Amino acid sequence: MPVDATYLRTIEHWRVRFESVGVPGSSIDSVVTNLDDWSDWPQLWKQLGDKEVAYAVDQEERGHDITASAGWYRAGLYYHYGLFVLFDNEPVRSQLVDAKLAAFSNAFRGMHPGVEQVTLESAAGVLHANVRRPDTSEPPPVVIILPGADSSKEEYVGFEDLLLDRGLATISVDGPGQGETRHRGVGWRFDYETAFPAVIDFVRSSDELRTDGIGLIGFSFGGYLAPRVAALCPEIIATVSLGGCFDLSGWDDLPPLLKADLMYLFEIPDEEEVRRRATDEVTLRDSLPGVRGDLLAVHSTADRIFSHQNARAMKELKPTTEVVIYEGGDHCCHNRSHHAKPMMADWLADHLG
Amino acid sequence: MPVDATYLRTIEHWRVRFESVGVPGSSIDSVVTNLDDWSDWPQLWKQLGDKEVAYAVDQEERGHDITASAGWYRAGLYYHYGLFVLFDNEPVRSQLVDAKLAAFSNAFRGMHPGVEQVTLESAAGVLHANVRRPDTSEPPPVVIILPGADSSKEEYVGFEDLLLDRGLATISVDGPGQGETRHRGVGWRFDYETAFPAVIDFVRSSDELRTDGIGLIGFSFGGYLAPRVAALCPEIIATVSLGGCFDLSGWDDLPPLLKADLMYLFEIPDEEEVRRRATDEVTLRDSLPGVRGDLLAVHSTADRIFSHQNARAMKELKPTTEVVIYEGGDHCCHNRSHHAKPMMADWLADHLG
Repeated sequence: MPVDATYLRTIEHWRVRFESVGVPGSSIDSVVTNLDDWSDWPQLWKQLGDKEVAYAVDQEERGHDITASAGWYRAGLYYHYGLFVLFDNEPVRSQLVDAKLAAFSNAFRGMHPGVEQVTLESAAGVLHANVRRPDTSEPPPVVIILPGADSSKEEYVGFEDLLLDRGLATISVDGPGQGETRHRGVGWRFDYETAFPAVIDFVRSSDELRTDGIGLIGFSFGGYLAPRVAALCPEIIATVSLGGCFDLSGWDDLPPLLKADLMYLFEIPDEEEVRRRATDEVTLRDSLPGVRGDLLAVHSTADRIFSHQNARAMKELKPTTEVVIYEGGDHCCHNRSHHAKPMMADWLADHLG
Repeated sequence: MPVDATYLRTIEHWRVRFESVGVPGSSIDSVVTNLDDWSDWPQLWKQLGDKEVAYAVDQEERGHDITASAGWYRAGLYYHYGLFVLFDNEPVRSQLVDAKLAAFSNAFRGMHPGVEQVTLESAAGVLHANVRRPDTSEPPPVVIILPGADSSKEEYVGFEDLLLDRGLATISVDGPGQGETRHRGVGWRFDYETAFPAVIDFVRSSDELRTDGIGLIGFSFGGYLAPRVAALCPEIIATVSLGGCFDLSGWDDLPPLLKADLMYLFEIPDEEEVRRRATDEVTLRDSLPGVRGDLLAVHSTADRIFSHQNARAMKELKPTTEVVIYEGGDHCCHNRSHHAKPMMADWLADHLG
């Protein structure tokens, strides 16, 4: 499929997101410049990743551990974003995911505070998660972080840093169907939340985390998943939904690439079936009234993925919901992240501290 | 002067630089969108700064000190970049500088490691500098940081962080004619380096800094100044020149805005006189042979301000100079900063550690 204007618009949309987690603008430029056909996308990112791995290995040999860690992290991001339009070639996809996970694992070795990679036995199967703790004398409160339809737990290192700076520990989780958890065999379920009592159990059994009052934040489609998890787990006292949806009743109007993401996430290749199930089963109608803790719904007026009306819909069903809408903000407020991210981190710290 | 294509090209050139120190892309967009005439530039940035100050004050009142500090820092950058085309209106300029210095001072209160603002009595007059120390048990080696023609000591917080992470202390200095030092009355001198024995004395008299083996790095025109300082101060054992010039013999071919910067820096309003003095007096011909420590000259093939031939010219006169040229890099390697900045930080740490 040749690169057309719609897709270039998509890439420009992604640019802010990619840059906000550490992809250099010059790397995005090099992919865009060399992109003749959409099918080149994974390979172009893989080339960047391979080059960055060689750089990281070289830096490690020179004893430059901090520099090497940053290189490994960029390599992981390159491989990860190479997956973004790759739905129909599982062998290539699997190879990229392996490279991505290896790169991120290497990156984590050199990060401060450190990243502990854990597996959690849940009702849905084994979850993969990253745990980080701030340098505090008392056991810190913890925030659970949920990715969206195309993201995975490793993308949140920068946001984790904001929470860690504010004295909060973090657990970024690939839930059923997401990232490493799916890669290792645990697929999506519409009752995604059933996996999360295992995460709560992990917190409660830890001597190094405060067990009363857990926080939760979900990004993008994770902003839909978060209230479902909060409704099932009463230990969660503060939940942030960023750029999420209330339901998928507007399926027909979703951007084509998001539909492809969701079809891949749900593992439903049939267009009529996915439309029906997404419309029927993706909704906060039954969950929101069960959310006992505080809820903050953050959205943007210029979100082209999910309208900010989704945040209003949450407030309608749960009137205590705090709604913050960024004027001119894009999906997940990436172009307002200098204000939106600290705001959410402070909100969580204020509620859990 | 209406905004023409040349100036828009300049702004796009600045974009990477501004973003690399923490100016949100959306802020640059808002200035560019509203820029009808070049004379609007200072006011548009001032408006952003004032808005960000209000945000920072509000965050402080809410007890969000980390968030407030980041807001103050952005406000300082907004005011600072508002100065960039302002050469002919000293009252407005002075007002912006006051706002900038106040904002940065407030930002420094919330930074970790902390920023100590010091004044140093030098042969040229009182210098203003920012000192930061890493969390190490032993007194750390220190790196002196020099701004260029349009920059000032506060822009280097991000680079300081890279050095601090590697166990090095930092002293970012506004030399004669630069930033706060000029604002408080100490103007440029072509023998700029004569002010720097005072900085060395400060290091040698400190109990908290290692006094043997000092590092130095200069950015842009500071990459020209650094070898001059190193030649005068034998305590400096490792010097980095980033994106600097060997001399200004190519004055006539310099970009018009850089000429305006230098005329303002030198305080020589006459075009013929500045041309003559810049050509005669700005040269490393006499200094380079006197640099006893190691020298690293870093440059880029796509530098539109100073050609990378300047780095080669340094090596020609001082053959032990290490030269690193980034292919496709822009002025000061801003678009390669994910590699160039850690490389320079590691080089300094390796030489001083």
